[in-house]
Amino acid sequence: MTIKDARTPASSQDEQPSSGRPVPDRSVPDGSESGGSESGRPAEESGKSIGWHRGYVEGSRPDLRVPVRQVHLTNGQSVTLYDTSGPYTDPSVDTDVRRGLSPLRENWIIARGDTAEYAGRPVRPEDDGIKHTSPRGGLRNLDAVFPGRPRQPRRSRDGGPVTQFAYARRGEVTPEMEYVALRENVSPEVVREEIAAGRAVLPANVNHPEIEPMIIGKRFLVKVNANIGNSAVTSSIEEEVEKMTWATHWGADTVMDLSTGRNIHTTREWVLRNSPVPIGTVPLYQALEKVDGRAEELTWEIYKDTVIEQAEQGVDYMTVHAGVRLPYVPLTANRKTGIVSRGGSIMAAWCLAHHRESFLYEHFEELCEILAAYDVTYSLGDGLRPGSIADANDEAQFAELRTLGELNTIAKRFQVQTMIEGPGHVPMHKIKENIDLQQEICDEAPFYTLGPLTTDVAPAYDHITSGIGAAMIAWWGTAMLCYVTPKEHLGLPDRDDVKTGVITYKIAAHAADLAKGHPGAQDWDDALSDARFEFRWEDQFNLALDPDTAREFHDETLPAEPAKTAHFCSMCGPKFCSMKISHDIRRDHGGSRAEIEDGMARKSKEFAASGNRVYLPLAD
Amino acid sequence: MTIKDARTPASSQDEQPSSGRPVPDRSVPDGSESGGSESGRPAEESGKSIGWHRGYVEGSRPDLRVPVRQVHLTNGQSVTLYDTSGPYTDPSVDTDVRRGLSPLRENWIIARGDTAEYAGRPVRPEDDGIKHTSPRGGLRNLDAVFPGRPRQPRRSRDGGPVTQFAYARRGEVTPEMEYVALRENVSPEVVREEIAAGRAVLPANVNHPEIEPMIIGKRFLVKVNANIGNSAVTSSIEEEVEKMTWATHWGADTVMDLSTGRNIHTTREWVLRNSPVPIGTVPLYQALEKVDGRAEELTWEIYKDTVIEQAEQGVDYMTVHAGVRLPYVPLTANRKTGIVSRGGSIMAAWCLAHHRESFLYEHFEELCEILAAYDVTYSLGDGLRPGSIADANDEAQFAELRTLGELNTIAKRFQVQTMIEGPGHVPMHKIKENIDLQQEICDEAPFYTLGPLTTDVAPAYDHITSGIGAAMIAWWGTAMLCYVTPKEHLGLPDRDDVKTGVITYKIAAHAADLAKGHPGAQDWDDALSDARFEFRWEDQFNLALDPDTAREFHDETLPAEPAKTAHFCSMCGPKFCSMKISHDIRRDHGGSRAEIEDGMARKSKEFAASGNRVYLPLAD
Repeated sequence: MTIKDARTPASSQDEQPSSGRPVPDRSVPDGSESGGSESGRPAEESGKSIGWHRGYVEGSRPDLRVPVRQVHLTNGQSVTLYDTSGPYTDPSVDTDVRRGLSPLRENWIIARGDTAEYAGRPVRPEDDGIKHTSPRGGLRNLDAVFPGRPRQPRRSRDGGPVTQFAYARRGEVTPEMEYVALRENVSPEVVREEIAAGRAVLPANVNHPEIEPMIIGKRFLVKVNANIGNSAVTSSIEEEVEKMTWATHWGADTVMDLSTGRNIHTTREWVLRNSPVPIGTVPLYQALEKVDGRAEELTWEIYKDTVIEQAEQGVDYMTVHAGVRLPYVPLTANRKTGIVSRGGSIMAAWCLAHHRESFLYEHFEELCEILAAYDVTYSLGDGLRPGSIADANDEAQFAELRTLGELNTIAKRFQVQTMIEGPGHVPMHKIKENIDLQQEICDEAPFYTLGPLTTDVAPAYDHITSGIGAAMIAWWGTAMLCYVTPKEHLGLPDRDDVKTGVITYKIAAHAADLAKGHPGAQDWDDALSDARFEFRWEDQFNLALDPDTAREFHDETLPAEPAKTAHFCSMCGPKFCSMKISHDIRRDHGGSRAEIEDGMARKSKEFAASGNRVYLPLAD
Repeated sequence: MTIKDARTPASSQDEQPSSGRPVPDRSVPDGSESGGSESGRPAEESGKSIGWHRGYVEGSRPDLRVPVRQVHLTNGQSVTLYDTSGPYTDPSVDTDVRRGLSPLRENWIIARGDTAEYAGRPVRPEDDGIKHTSPRGGLRNLDAVFPGRPRQPRRSRDGGPVTQFAYARRGEVTPEMEYVALRENVSPEVVREEIAAGRAVLPANVNHPEIEPMIIGKRFLVKVNANIGNSAVTSSIEEEVEKMTWATHWGADTVMDLSTGRNIHTTREWVLRNSPVPIGTVPLYQALEKVDGRAEELTWEIYKDTVIEQAEQGVDYMTVHAGVRLPYVPLTANRKTGIVSRGGSIMAAWCLAHHRESFLYEHFEELCEILAAYDVTYSLGDGLRPGSIADANDEAQFAELRTLGELNTIAKRFQVQTMIEGPGHVPMHKIKENIDLQQEICDEAPFYTLGPLTTDVAPAYDHITSGIGAAMIAWWGTAMLCYVTPKEHLGLPDRDDVKTGVITYKIAAHAADLAKGHPGAQDWDDALSDARFEFRWEDQFNLALDPDTAREFHDETLPAEPAKTAHFCSMCGPKFCSMKISHDIRRDHGGSRAEIEDGMARKSKEFAASGNRVYLPLAD
């Protein structure tokens, strides 16, 4: 494997001499101010080449270059980490939010020859929540929606599945599979096998060629999803794009756009065209907007039209609450907190209003055909997830899970990639049952959980109550974690909340990678601990999940530049460093244990003669 | 059990009409500014009697009143929670940091008749880190140390053990045991049994009569310790006292004073005289100060003198690193991060310098006699704990643990209460082995762990990396968790860091209480979830671990007062509330599951006739 650094183009070494790690403007406390490019643009860092940089691992063909984060250390070594930040952190790429990212996968999709462009569904004012005066009159003006390059939607040429699952089943290793194999440091065949077995998904709509492919499955690194979403009052379209790049900058592997209200279609278009990660949605939310929030007026036709609208735009995975069936609604009646999922409550309302089985459940096969034609991945929603500790693992929740198992089987028959959503609020001793049951009932389809939150008593800290549960359930096999921010239950997350949520969940995911013994996962911890032990402060910061905050916290107590190379820190001070004694032990007694045991006796006397200064003050 | 509210003195109802929950001044961002009393003084809250208040559970005698936090809800109900905030939150108590708290336990201690006051060790300038010109010349001027009421130290009259362990062994239920039984809602006999079996400790030095007794053991609520400690540059004595009350205000069950440098004796005196919770220390730190930081100059005599000095002041538990034995030092040589415990590295340095067995190990029995005479509890330190994921569960760590098992047996023979300290940095899959081994080797003595941190890669977020491990190890049996703040590895915690650390660890402890099925633990979650489901926003805030931040986050998005009673929130908005549909289901279909199943068919038609408005917009 060859790693190219974005700083050094293949043609000439050091043409682009040095660029430090991105330094996002941390002075902007919330998402209400601009800065679309700041989160990704590397900044010069006083001429030093230490720091982190976007590099690439080259695959079997020139257009297959997998991004990595190269952390260059002060001791000349470098550490390679997974990178989700997209081309925004590559100084050799000129990004423009109005033009969108370049369509990395376009040639791969075209080369397969199984899809074709077509005119597509007309974009209507009501797609953006604008009151429809002439419901039949369509708009076909993509320029109005997004100023970037014109595009036609694409779908299966013959209506058959064009999914990574279908390819994997027939034994094909696609460029996308090779890409994620390089990213995960496994063989492409392992990727193909896991997808073919339904144990992993590679969400990659044929209409979202801009993504850098990634995989979600228990044999791979645990992934993190961040939710964004406009609200009528507080966000502009550019701000939503900025929220997306901000989340991926800190490590979000996928982003769900949960926008409601106005400009929902246009916002999604901008997000998709600029997103290097798969985008997920809940089509039911937009469908409900189209009937002015009246759940009982929803129809299969409106829903289906919305799914096609979003599939044509390039949504990579969709949450579908088809497991909320009519007979399960009464099971929620005696719950402490009833139904807390928005999608679940909409479908429950519809079922009760019509006293009929869910239209999503009844039309599930037709939905499979649509998703297969674009390679949209199912995220089968847990509409009856528990919203409190009291409701965890109850009859309603597990009844729905059994239905999700049925639906997973159907989806697989249609060769649609499928993952299963999970709770919610669950105390620690009831977490394992969730993943074990899901894996059994759903044939090991990837589990995608929200937390779970391990207690209800800490609003404002639910990133932590849920980060605990997330780490545990990921260790036990959950493939992707949906983040929770400090604002959960209280308000809309701002920029700082998004960052805190992503960082907390990256911790949970990485802790799980370690506990699962994921190959190479511990290299990161080892590199940081080596730096810590050797007092290489800059390396500690640059290797940290959040270099900015680590540096800032250090500088609060010891701000001077020499403190960055000092062999002590503010916790113990110069006279009192516990790590230094270990260095002294090695220095005075040899490097290995045998040497030390041997040397201890021998050196004891000369040591005493030298003044017994083991615990040397370094300064005073 | 009768609960009295501090607002309503027994003599006359409503004499003291209403006082809201304490509103600490959150505008002071760090510990460098004053405000000793602000953290505990309740403030009027616009005349409402909702909020939280300090109440008391009355025991079998008038001087046995156990504090509780009464949360008064808007629906007229109230919820009783454990309270660590001390008399500072009782408006009927006039506290003064220069006078100290009133000695709650003094009469109980005197009544036992097994202790006597004595002249005590003279306080010397070097106790406060002041260079000694005349090492023999003593100072006996307690007024200079603390301006409060004069006191003489007290110790065992005949040298025999005056420990809660000794009393429990002979079948006595002390007032302290009754107190914690009321606090934990168990029978006094359970408390006595657990202490007698060595499975729990009740740290309560006879020279610290000010504490409100608490218990540490796996059958009881999981406890949280917060560390404080001055540093020459940044703290004053008053600030240390303020840090202590700030930590207990947010829920710290014990506080360790890890001060170094100047004024170490005086600071500790002030902290002890004002602390409602047990205070722990590491006497080795002060002993090292007395030899100007030269580990090899430490002697048993200096150490012993320091232990007596601190025991006379009233330190309730002491970390003793007697398990760091000479033969174990070489076991750390090939570690990634060597020895990271300060105490451990001091003892390792001493052992190597003299090439002799640890003086703490060799004099352990003599130390037991001293501790037994004051009822100081051992916290047997884990000086060889792993400082990185790579070093977790290694030979050095477990060799020391086996020695701690030996020492625990010896301590029990001398009837000294004992707990065992644990790591450190441990990946999730290696955590359970730590608690299982400790429980086996140490005869189920209470385990007291630092985290553990489940990954090394997130400096600035180690409250979270460790909160994950803390919740898990507490579920599996750890009795007390030592908090970790966001500044761990980087700098000295300020006021905000202390609060974040305590809140994070209260979450871990409560999540563990739930997972252990601790009786009544879920009542708190249920009360908060009921409030959430019923849109009682004020009750949600007041029941939250951190009411201030919960309220502030809510108000950021929906600041208006009516939003506090609105049946929706900013996450979904008025048209889109998932919780509301559950209320509609109950309203329209009956209360119980049977009623609903029965009523669904019956009501289906009339429901359609009523316009199918299940999902009623509440406002627009």
